[in-house]
Amino acid sequence: MDAAQEAHNREAFRQAVVNTLERRLFYIPSFKIYRGVAGLYDYGPPGCAVKSNVLAFWRQHFVLEENMLEVDCPCVTPEIVLKASGHVDKFTDLMVKDEKTGTCYRADHLLKDYCKDKLEKDPNLSAEKAAELRHVLAVLDDLSAEELGAKIKGYGITAPDTKNSLSDPYPFNLMFQTSIGPSGLSPGYMRPETAQGIFVNFKDLYYYNGNKLPFAAAQIGQAFRNEISPRQGLLRVREFTLAEIEHFVDPDDKSHPKFSEVASLEFLMFPREDQVSGRAARRIPIGEAVTQVGLLDVCHLVSSCLLPGILFSILTIIHNSVCSGIVNNETLGYFIGRVYLFLTELGIDKDRLRFRQHLANEMAHYAADCWDAEIECSYGWIECVGIADRSAYDLRAHTDKSGVPLVAHEKYPEPKEVEKLVIAPVKKELGLAFKGNQRMVVEALEAMGEEEAMEMKATLETKGEAEFRVCTLDKVVTIKSNMVSISKEKKKEHQRVFTPSVIEPSFGIGRIIYCLYEHSFYTRPSKDGDEQLNVFRFPPLVAPIKCTVFPLVQNQQYEEVARNIARALTTVGISYKIDITGTSIGKRYARTDELGVPFAITVDSTSSVTVRERDSKQQIRVNVDEVASVVKEVTDGVSTWADVLWRYPTHSS
Amino acid sequence: MDAAQEAHNREAFRQAVVNTLERRLFYIPSFKIYRGVAGLYDYGPPGCAVKSNVLAFWRQHFVLEENMLEVDCPCVTPEIVLKASGHVDKFTDLMVKDEKTGTCYRADHLLKDYCKDKLEKDPNLSAEKAAELRHVLAVLDDLSAEELGAKIKGYGITAPDTKNSLSDPYPFNLMFQTSIGPSGLSPGYMRPETAQGIFVNFKDLYYYNGNKLPFAAAQIGQAFRNEISPRQGLLRVREFTLAEIEHFVDPDDKSHPKFSEVASLEFLMFPREDQVSGRAARRIPIGEAVTQVGLLDVCHLVSSCLLPGILFSILTIIHNSVCSGIVNNETLGYFIGRVYLFLTELGIDKDRLRFRQHLANEMAHYAADCWDAEIECSYGWIECVGIADRSAYDLRAHTDKSGVPLVAHEKYPEPKEVEKLVIAPVKKELGLAFKGNQRMVVEALEAMGEEEAMEMKATLETKGEAEFRVCTLDKVVTIKSNMVSISKEKKKEHQRVFTPSVIEPSFGIGRIIYCLYEHSFYTRPSKDGDEQLNVFRFPPLVAPIKCTVFPLVQNQQYEEVARNIARALTTVGISYKIDITGTSIGKRYARTDELGVPFAITVDSTSSVTVRERDSKQQIRVNVDEVASVVKEVTDGVSTWADVLWRYPTHSS
Repeated sequence: MDAAQEAHNREAFRQAVVNTLERRLFYIPSFKIYRGVAGLYDYGPPGCAVKSNVLAFWRQHFVLEENMLEVDCPCVTPEIVLKASGHVDKFTDLMVKDEKTGTCYRADHLLKDYCKDKLEKDPNLSAEKAAELRHVLAVLDDLSAEELGAKIKGYGITAPDTKNSLSDPYPFNLMFQTSIGPSGLSPGYMRPETAQGIFVNFKDLYYYNGNKLPFAAAQIGQAFRNEISPRQGLLRVREFTLAEIEHFVDPDDKSHPKFSEVASLEFLMFPREDQVSGRAARRIPIGEAVTQVGLLDVCHLVSSCLLPGILFSILTIIHNSVCSGIVNNETLGYFIGRVYLFLTELGIDKDRLRFRQHLANEMAHYAADCWDAEIECSYGWIECVGIADRSAYDLRAHTDKSGVPLVAHEKYPEPKEVEKLVIAPVKKELGLAFKGNQRMVVEALEAMGEEEAMEMKATLETKGEAEFRVCTLDKVVTIKSNMVSISKEKKKEHQRVFTPSVIEPSFGIGRIIYCLYEHSFYTRPSKDGDEQLNVFRFPPLVAPIKCTVFPLVQNQQYEEVARNIARALTTVGISYKIDITGTSIGKRYARTDELGVPFAITVDSTSSVTVRERDSKQQIRVNVDEVASVVKEVTDGVSTWADVLWRYPTHSS
Repeated sequence: MDAAQEAHNREAFRQAVVNTLERRLFYIPSFKIYRGVAGLYDYGPPGCAVKSNVLAFWRQHFVLEENMLEVDCPCVTPEIVLKASGHVDKFTDLMVKDEKTGTCYRADHLLKDYCKDKLEKDPNLSAEKAAELRHVLAVLDDLSAEELGAKIKGYGITAPDTKNSLSDPYPFNLMFQTSIGPSGLSPGYMRPETAQGIFVNFKDLYYYNGNKLPFAAAQIGQAFRNEISPRQGLLRVREFTLAEIEHFVDPDDKSHPKFSEVASLEFLMFPREDQVSGRAARRIPIGEAVTQVGLLDVCHLVSSCLLPGILFSILTIIHNSVCSGIVNNETLGYFIGRVYLFLTELGIDKDRLRFRQHLANEMAHYAADCWDAEIECSYGWIECVGIADRSAYDLRAHTDKSGVPLVAHEKYPEPKEVEKLVIAPVKKELGLAFKGNQRMVVEALEAMGEEEAMEMKATLETKGEAEFRVCTLDKVVTIKSNMVSISKEKKKEHQRVFTPSVIEPSFGIGRIIYCLYEHSFYTRPSKDGDEQLNVFRFPPLVAPIKCTVFPLVQNQQYEEVARNIARALTTVGISYKIDITGTSIGKRYARTDELGVPFAITVDSTSSVTVRERDSKQQIRVNVDEVASVVKEVTDGVSTWADVLWRYPTHSS
């Protein structure tokens, strides 16, 4: 199958899924009667039920299982908080405007579309030009406003709707802005993530946890992103539900007591190195991916095996050792494993799920490591969960801005004499030398590790100046000896005070649900073979409705039995749908298969009824009195369908 | 006890509750490290758990029990939707500004504070003046901007903080405004209620329900209200969770099939008439409050009983009949009953819960009837749930604005010949006569019932003009015969097309939870009697943590047993807290009583453990293997504590 055919099939599959979802009200474009708003969607009844099942399972799987501290903070957030987090300054996309109509576009989207279009449709494209365009696509995310603007001008890209010329790209902040209170003097934003609400509460949560690390806080809630021009349907929206975990941990000890419980899980991982070298994702046990095999072990092996015949084995060992230690630490690895379990239990296909490590240029400078759970759907591989070790960045940022130290303490058994590195930048001299960049230089100096600092001290003493790379400025500056004093001081310390690292698994609930819809959808021929029927193979855990109740024919006796069963189902907390229309039983099955209802009870006598399983279409006969508890058993996962199939007589219709 | 003492006690009680809530992180003032934002609060870990338990029960009690269609719509809402609903024009409070500093205040709050202060603290107040101030307090909610301004000026009220003079009152819209997309041309608001998301989806939901009435849709979500100056702590906040039901029903048939299930419930009701005549709320069975006893029945009784001796009985019958029909219809009554059950099962004290009917001036002109579930707490009687029959107002408003008919259909068994009232206002003439008020007059004319319209027709024919009261203008206008044509036309109709009425129970979740905290809080002396300990007597249903696990002393064996029990609790889905600190068992009980944890498991052997119930402090001995399932049983309400007390040996410590 060629690429065009494949793209066509993907598109057709997506259309079939989306049509079913929209027709059965899994979702509804919001404010539809007013012609809607791009990027806003409602969850209709079955979609809303799926969402609340997914969230309930998330609570069970993460919050309850790990004893996390769940909090619930407002969406309206004052500016200062998002100034500290960096969102006010950096949560932007580059935008261009149609110079006549003022319509806005995302600059990178236009350039991407142009390149793709040329590559796919221009038969006269030279090999050289094609290579250039492919290169542009590869580096698209790294282009600055100037570079993007130059490309857009260079290729003569115009506004797609009007062909008018476009403005230069400029940053547009993606937060919805508002004003808190009546004065107009307190700017606020709708939060772009739920994490900040947890960080600002660190001190109280640490206290609540008995001043002990590690602990995790969690939050489920709405987040907002005022997209310039939303595309990709349900995947890129302006308001969405996030479920976030902030696991606070001692930076010197990121081991996890329950790591062994996930260590043997094996799934698709896509480490940085493999991406760069063009290899495919591969199955690696997470236990192996986390283990730190020291370089010495490998060297030892190499030097002790001098026979050329076993060179191949050595290379294999070296190659395998690449897997080792690719995940920065056990806690990060533990969460990767737990996320894998969460997604696959929901019904995500494990062969279309991979964990991709961020490339160096994707990762924030402070992050220690970052892995995305990506799910493959008709739009390609989609980031659905991000699992990042954000080091101490967030807590430090809020400590600096608020003046409230967000730190943890560890008491020493007895006071310790410590030699402490003291780096004292001389702000006046630095100010004179670096003007507006002073703060960046100061921060970079203060952030030096012991080794680097002592090296600089030596250089300054011998040469009077030292070259120094400031990451945040992306350049090398010259530090003179009057600009900083570096020394070591001896002190008695009773406790260690430190800023915890935070490991953050962050779940885009809407994206997970959309991918789940695609992975659960299939079609099969109707009984008479003249049409294709849609089915969602949701596991009972996520199915919006667990069970339907149908009287086989319209009569009062059967209806009464159906109503009694319905009441029994409500009592045991099983959601059901009762259908007493006279429609044929086949049609009624088809209707509910399309909603992914796993079990159907058909009332065809007053003493016993049939229970049908959606995917196998197998049926069993169960007594009226028992049926609610049988359905509950298989729905709650206490028994499987195979179990009950053994226990009850099968029924063939 | 005099009023001042009572107020003092209430204040002290509230302080005790609020201190406990804040210290144990039931809630946290949001963004505290940045000195917070008035009217924004976080739910900390136990508060968040209580909230999610309340919402889960709401879903079970309403959505699942009644097969409601739950939806989930965005908070960001385009202007047109809230223009249609009336919020853009009318969702305002009157505000005054400090003329020098610009600080804003709610005009009615300042006037209220002034009156109360004078009445409480001015010993020289004349009886006449006191009566005047009391009158102002009574009519406060009805004052126009001009009247409020005149009073504020008249009493010389100044800005409380600076004593500067104040501006005239002017309306401030309470919605948080924002802008959707990058153009700045699409104004939007953060929704002030969740209901509109349901109304705009009526057509799809009606279809989803098989084009059948009645049905209910429901939504849980955040709502926003940009208060001018929030007061009353957790009761008046700028962002809050609403749970709303919109029950759509045929306006000609508001009966409810399940009404009989609640009819015998009896609770405090406070009908309009009783409020006006100064009577107290009284217990009335909801079945009686809804029954329509026709006036004829009463007349018949009176005329047939002429013996003076039984006059008393007649009067009693007449008096009782006042209860009858005070609730407009069965569906409204059914929901009042269900709300009563919901609140009392959560733990709201039934003696401090009443259903108060709106007075005529409180109710929107379109509303058929409206009852608030009010809960008494230290702030007085607080509206926590509103249960309103909003007639067809909302669906009509969106039909008008969007042009999409939000209507229901009822097919006649065979076509009907009907005489239809046709009211055709002549807009040109009405425009000339009423200018800016034309629309109001047109709407009022079109809204006339058959009787009123035919009366006007007759008057216009005889006198050439007619007096006509326009409610929305609050005045009587003169309609001339060239301004409207009224006629009856005969038509064959195949179906009845009508706008459904909507009955809306709307729950302020945060308020319910706050009142629940107050109703659940009590103190009792510690064992040695030297301090008062705080307890929340939450029912297991809402308790944030169901169970604690304590090893009696710190040793590895007991800790291992404790951990095994903890694992078993997780497996059965019971949230727990494990405390392996060496603190005394009494202190550990006290800590968790303060979180309202209903059951505590103390590990004092490796084979059996004790289970203690929070309020009675009774203890039983249970085998280690059984304990998780026993706790689950009493937590889920399958058994009561009294049941298990029978089954297991008691333990005295």
